[in-house]
Amino acid sequence: METSIRNHLKGKIKEIVLGDVVCEVEVDTPAGLITSVITTRSVKRLNLKAGDEVYAVVKATEVSLEK
Amino acid sequence: METSIRNHLKGKIKEIVLGDVVCEVEVDTPAGLITSVITTRSVKRLNLKAGDEVYAVVKATEVSLEK
Amino acid sequence: METSIRNHLKGKIKEIVLGDVVCEVEVDTPAGLITSVITTRSVKRLNLKAGDEVYAVVKATEVSLEK
Amino acid sequence: METSIRNHLKGKIKEIVLGDVVCEVEVDTPAGLITSVITTRSVKRLNLKAGDEVYAVVKATEVSLEK
Amino acid sequence: METSIRNHLKGKIKEIVLGDVVCEVEVDTPAGLITSVITTRSVKRLNLKAGDEVYAVVKATEVSLEK
Amino acid sequence: METSIRNHLKGKIKEIVLGDVVCEVEVDTPAGLITSVITTRSVKRLNLKAGDEVYAVVKATEVSLEK
Repeated sequence: METSIRNHLKGKIKEIVLGDVVCEVEVDTPAGLITSVITTRSVKRLNLKAGDEVYAVVKATEVSLEK
Repeated sequence: METSIRNHLKGKIKEIVLGDVVCEVEVDTPAGLITSVITTRSVKRLNLKAGDEVYAVVKATEVSLEK
Repeated sequence: METSIRNHLKGKIKEIVLGDVVCEVEVDTPAGLITSVITTRSVKRLNLKAGDEVYAVVKATEVSLEK
Repeated sequence: METSIRNHLKGKIKEIVLGDVVCEVEVDTPAGLITSVITTRSVKRLNLKAGDEVYAVVKATEVSLEK
Repeated sequence: METSIRNHLKGKIKEIVLGDVVCEVEVDTPAGLITSVITTRSVKRLNLKAGDEVYAVVKATEVSLEK
Repeated sequence: METSIRNHLKGKIKEIVLGDVVCEVEVDTPAGLITSVITTRSVKRLNLKAGDEVYAVVKATEVSLEK
């Protein structure tokens, strides 16, 4: 299976802030820290924990630019 | 002015695909290529062109994870 | 690789409207037609065409409800 | 009133995970379970509960494809 | 039908930039101009044109803050 | 630094609902109340509180229209 999603940034989970419905996951990448907010159920289903190698994934229409 | 947006990835514009209403902008970052789709008017207003140093900006709720 | 993204709806591509930068792809699912707007480059990279079996993928934070 | 939003999937609420600020709502549709994250205030304002008939609503630019 | 979407800003269409797949619609509101990018098919289906009274609609998770 | 993001609506914070991972922030603007869901860490980092003058910021691709 291939995805239409254009952005996949490899990194390592630095920290997870657990919440009742959503969690905040900080991922250390070569471009700096990337923060993701995903459901707590996904954190448990993927068994995410600090130190895991993951990809941060973002649809191109969600990316803005600053100059 | 400070922003609540958590993710700012520094890079350099590699290529712009010009469209009638939206453009695709590819940004070379230390974490790999990041693709952004923004309005053509923003490309013109910011005078974006290949080689420009920019930040790719993404709200945390837009970031998914793969493991 | 597993994804944190919660929604994956199986369907068949009914029609693609080709654009310069983005395309509109209509997918026939058991829940009705689902429309996706993705980059033209992704349409070409995945070689998407009418009749293809695909999954429509949506992050949970992007889903609203009506009652 | 008509909306520009393209995707409206009919279903029935299967479960609500209540949170302090946002809730997770699972909707059973003919295309499978769809998960939505909306504010707790919206859950209360619409008086959403298991068994309710609802529509899951998604803007086309938020839909990615996998093949 | 009621929606979970929190933000509805009343305004009048000032200008539409027509594109092959998506259009840019500028809406004049009491809070200033709001720009929307929607599919060209939605523009035609709703028969949108300059001068129309419309609501700009935004899910709360898509709104960032600057201070 | 300039941003590609098209929508910036000036207002004053009316209320903040604090959550473990995300908060809901209501902003009073000339176009009515605007609700934003951002991370609790951003609320703390920007030291947001009722009465603060802020801008609600939205990417154009996140704005739908109703007529």
